[in-house]
Amino acid sequence: MIIVMKPEADKETVDRLLEKIESKGLKPLHMPGAERVVLGALGDERVLAELQLEAEPSVESVKPILAPYKLAARDLHPHDSVIEIGNAAIGGGRFALIAGPCAVENEEQVMASAKAAKEAGARVLRGGAYKPRTSPYSFQGHGPEGLELLRKAGDAHDLPIVTELVDTRDLDLLVEKSDAIQIGTRNMQNFELLKAVGGTDKPVMLKRGMAAKIDDLLMAAEYILAHGNEQVILCERGIRTFETATRNTLDLAAVPLLKEKTHLPVIVDPSHGTGKRELVTPMALAAAAAGADGVMVEVHYNPPSALSDGPQSLYPEQMVALGDQLDRLLGALGRA
Amino acid sequence: MIIVMKPEADKETVDRLLEKIESKGLKPLHMPGAERVVLGALGDERVLAELQLEAEPSVESVKPILAPYKLAARDLHPHDSVIEIGNAAIGGGRFALIAGPCAVENEEQVMASAKAAKEAGARVLRGGAYKPRTSPYSFQGHGPEGLELLRKAGDAHDLPIVTELVDTRDLDLLVEKSDAIQIGTRNMQNFELLKAVGGTDKPVMLKRGMAAKIDDLLMAAEYILAHGNEQVILCERGIRTFETATRNTLDLAAVPLLKEKTHLPVIVDPSHGTGKRELVTPMALAAAAAGADGVMVEVHYNPPSALSDGPQSLYPEQMVALGDQLDRLLGALGRA
Amino acid sequence: MIIVMKPEADKETVDRLLEKIESKGLKPLHMPGAERVVLGALGDERVLAELQLEAEPSVESVKPILAPYKLAARDLHPHDSVIEIGNAAIGGGRFALIAGPCAVENEEQVMASAKAAKEAGARVLRGGAYKPRTSPYSFQGHGPEGLELLRKAGDAHDLPIVTELVDTRDLDLLVEKSDAIQIGTRNMQNFELLKAVGGTDKPVMLKRGMAAKIDDLLMAAEYILAHGNEQVILCERGIRTFETATRNTLDLAAVPLLKEKTHLPVIVDPSHGTGKRELVTPMALAAAAAGADGVMVEVHYNPPSALSDGPQSLYPEQMVALGDQLDRLLGALGRA
Amino acid sequence: MIIVMKPEADKETVDRLLEKIESKGLKPLHMPGAERVVLGALGDERVLAELQLEAEPSVESVKPILAPYKLAARDLHPHDSVIEIGNAAIGGGRFALIAGPCAVENEEQVMASAKAAKEAGARVLRGGAYKPRTSPYSFQGHGPEGLELLRKAGDAHDLPIVTELVDTRDLDLLVEKSDAIQIGTRNMQNFELLKAVGGTDKPVMLKRGMAAKIDDLLMAAEYILAHGNEQVILCERGIRTFETATRNTLDLAAVPLLKEKTHLPVIVDPSHGTGKRELVTPMALAAAAAGADGVMVEVHYNPPSALSDGPQSLYPEQMVALGDQLDRLLGALGRA
Repeated sequence: MIIVMKPEADKETVDRLLEKIESKGLKPLHMPGAERVVLGALGDERVLAELQLEAEPSVESVKPILAPYKLAARDLHPHDSVIEIGNAAIGGGRFALIAGPCAVENEEQVMASAKAAKEAGARVLRGGAYKPRTSPYSFQGHGPEGLELLRKAGDAHDLPIVTELVDTRDLDLLVEKSDAIQIGTRNMQNFELLKAVGGTDKPVMLKRGMAAKIDDLLMAAEYILAHGNEQVILCERGIRTFETATRNTLDLAAVPLLKEKTHLPVIVDPSHGTGKRELVTPMALAAAAAGADGVMVEVHYNPPSALSDGPQSLYPEQMVALGDQLDRLLGALGRA
Repeated sequence: MIIVMKPEADKETVDRLLEKIESKGLKPLHMPGAERVVLGALGDERVLAELQLEAEPSVESVKPILAPYKLAARDLHPHDSVIEIGNAAIGGGRFALIAGPCAVENEEQVMASAKAAKEAGARVLRGGAYKPRTSPYSFQGHGPEGLELLRKAGDAHDLPIVTELVDTRDLDLLVEKSDAIQIGTRNMQNFELLKAVGGTDKPVMLKRGMAAKIDDLLMAAEYILAHGNEQVILCERGIRTFETATRNTLDLAAVPLLKEKTHLPVIVDPSHGTGKRELVTPMALAAAAAGADGVMVEVHYNPPSALSDGPQSLYPEQMVALGDQLDRLLGALGRA
Repeated sequence: MIIVMKPEADKETVDRLLEKIESKGLKPLHMPGAERVVLGALGDERVLAELQLEAEPSVESVKPILAPYKLAARDLHPHDSVIEIGNAAIGGGRFALIAGPCAVENEEQVMASAKAAKEAGARVLRGGAYKPRTSPYSFQGHGPEGLELLRKAGDAHDLPIVTELVDTRDLDLLVEKSDAIQIGTRNMQNFELLKAVGGTDKPVMLKRGMAAKIDDLLMAAEYILAHGNEQVILCERGIRTFETATRNTLDLAAVPLLKEKTHLPVIVDPSHGTGKRELVTPMALAAAAAGADGVMVEVHYNPPSALSDGPQSLYPEQMVALGDQLDRLLGALGRA
Repeated sequence: MIIVMKPEADKETVDRLLEKIESKGLKPLHMPGAERVVLGALGDERVLAELQLEAEPSVESVKPILAPYKLAARDLHPHDSVIEIGNAAIGGGRFALIAGPCAVENEEQVMASAKAAKEAGARVLRGGAYKPRTSPYSFQGHGPEGLELLRKAGDAHDLPIVTELVDTRDLDLLVEKSDAIQIGTRNMQNFELLKAVGGTDKPVMLKRGMAAKIDDLLMAAEYILAHGNEQVILCERGIRTFETATRNTLDLAAVPLLKEKTHLPVIVDPSHGTGKRELVTPMALAAAAAGADGVMVEVHYNPPSALSDGPQSLYPEQMVALGDQLDRLLGALGRA
């Protein structure tokens, strides 16, 4: 950790800070320059982070050297983690298609959507029983009954299921009924929820928050890992920017960057990432080309009748065509 | 609601959509132009929003005319709402100073901080017992014991208290012990939490999410109002932008804009909004000049020793000076 | 165009605005709703845009129906435009690799970089003689001598050249010496420069501004087209967002979206779009998968010695490997 | 400057970089830690910036210690600069109101607007003769004739004038006719324009770019200062963010932050910063409360007839009322 002092910092303050650094078991460094005094601290600077040296009036800025996450970092875990959702392995070079409807609406709909997912080559079925909606007047999901229907559709097509948890009170039910638990964008920094899933043995699909930097996403993963659950899959799903022509700005460069920084699998959600059906297929292909470990795509048997996210849901035949194009592209790049 | 069709939309589709609009009890309009067919729907278009007409392949875009919130809108509630936190009234022309430490650390600290708040003219004491922290390795708050200490400090200085709720499981305790409940930035779209506080009779201080548009904030307030609780105070606390010189970008124009759109009180948090002690005082003054109903400011008896947010906490004497400057500025503008 | 009136708008104002609409040769529509009066204007609403109806105190908002650009729109030009830079055709299904150094530094460097570009299958050589640099203390380019060297390198390897114009005073020289003119990110809304290149017969590579929405980019292209030059190539190169782990956020969804809205070719610059060498190859592949008409990539014979953009420049052998991977990917997707 | 090496960096590379640092006349430091080797360079690291050490494959990141600007920094110029536009002094504690129409349209309009500005207490008259407009179909300004009219209006009301330069070809005319030259948002990084005004002896009002960080703005100022012109006034006018309820997001915290970092005067443009007439007055007051050296406000004798920026232009009586409120607020805060 590097501590840059303000020009007016006096010797007493500098000495006091050097002692503070030493008292934490780190090696202090004193680097007086022409315009600024700079201090250094060698060792596990994460203990020092808690000192909040920026709170000192004579400190100009503090620059960490090490990443704030440990368990999620590739440094000490050079090999790719492979996470198993039911019979589907995610990560480690394989590419996984995850598909299904945004929300579970009724049996006919979820069955038809699961069928389309299966035909397109999907390995996991997604679907929401608890829906976080911007408006209190929008459909909020069918809850336990929705979960039951999703389970039924998954079993009927031999697909493990992943579904979203929105409150700690529903944790036990989701652990019982689902094969993986999704933490949605709006809850990426709902730390109580992260701690809760960190205490289970279910795989967690953690979606990037709309305002989350790469490091924020990795710190959210670190919460789950630090609470004992090593099965975390990261999901890039677009961030909020000034561009309004798409629902979000899908940050595909996050894929190779995350794969450099972490051993966890990284998948992409081009449906929420764009919000427009016409853009889902090109962005799913782009995600595969960028090195993603999979994509999660919304499919609906009749999008204009969907209770949620119809505009971004693929028609079943588009889903099948996408599966085919993904196969060809991955083959050309030497991946399975 | 205005529906713009794609150039290739055929007559059958147009007729079908007009029928759909009529079937919802709205008056349909057909406006054929030279380059696009445009449809209109007159009436309470909120029912139409649920139809998700954008999901139709031949629809280019849908433009709502009315705001998506009703209870929060000033349209039908022209007078300012005044919300009472204990003996402090917020809104309706009065200006309220809310102050206190970021986190409750120990009795000495919270007592000294409450004393500084009181001396500066604060009407409400703030302090966190449950802390949402970016890192799992950071201090997470003292929970129930912290709440007890905050209550004690408030009582000792005759200040009502506001504190943050981070999980539905803690709701009952907060309802019992606090005078107002804060919903933090990271939970602004934690809809289960919003529903839960919507079911209580405690005032709610709702902080704007880091990636929340003005309308998202108002929709989050609408959740609470729609679940029966009319006591909502909005808090602008900065949004996330490309600028890194400040912790967040404090969007002060949101203050007069919100006051135009809603009857709810609007306060500003310049501490989180800037992240830098030197900027807190000028931004608190600017908030008052922009018409805010109050400011919420972090104060600590010894910021460099703070377990959380030390860099943005005022020293007690700065807090008192701010109170004095606020008085003069508000007096000059004819406010109390 | 749809004009939403404020609730308090009176009949006189509404009548006056309807007359204003009619006076411009558009058909006025009056749609009184329960909560708001809404007005419509059918016809070429671009003439109405100039009326600035939002400036009327009783107008709440104005919603355009048509895109503000005409010449750039695909509506009236359904076929892809193909733009020729020397012997290289860009657009219309072909995929073009454009490569070269960020800045022309000296003869050895530009020759070696051109050789690497050629070997990787590049069809156009890029290189900067006039460099817009954030710091006045940074290398500003060699100007006319740099242009001469780039021309020489292009001729030696039978590659047409594209180079950036930063001031109208240099226009004649660039028209004489280069095969295509680049308008950089920082000048995307330097309208005098756009008008100037609009008056030439040189192809223009127009890079998206850091803060430009898709429609801003298309309006900048419209400037060039409206001044008589139909040869415009659009280039996505990343936008500025809150994410700091990459130099910019490469908005790849802009590629299929632009191809839907405009007939102009769309290429991607993954070098500036990411700022990191390790991310250039995956993002170039992703751009191709997303449907781009080409990529523009920085290559340098010795990146650590580069005077500009070394961190994002590929080594020559990486460039050749990228060319090979692009071939395989495009083949798999049925493109040349 | 601090250089963080990748974990795999070998001793040879480290030694080579230490030599590189020494060869530039800086003192090299070697700080081997448990997880990373960190190098330091003490001295004027700006010379090192040019080495682009990030381009080295084994360098993970480079962290500068000093600001990249020198002439604009307060470090070596502790006293506020005061810039004179005609008979109006900007900076150094005084507060200046700059007002006028967005564009010069005709004699009647500019005269009436100048009268309103004068009555409100404005010290400088603003008005555009050359207009950078998003659309090629919008009014582009009257050029030299507009400048003549602005000069006439300024002289008639004894107000110095400031007007925007959009192309180097118009520089001589503006130097002859205006008292200060404005560089607009879209040209903040038009470095040729910055160099050109840097070669004159006219005060320059430099507006922050829509995507410019505080440091980018200061580097743009540095261009002008480094080319010999010390008369630079900075203008905060809003940045582009995800919020669409306002035209831009006015970043008022930039005011006290800039005043800490630089000796140059800082003014605020609440008209472009919000884009809405109702928000201009509260934001102008907030700017004054935040410590700005002035505000620049658009006023028009009949906003609904304005050819540009009507929605954000004040009516003359609003302008006068704002002048009065500013006086009271500044008086209460002890400023003139």
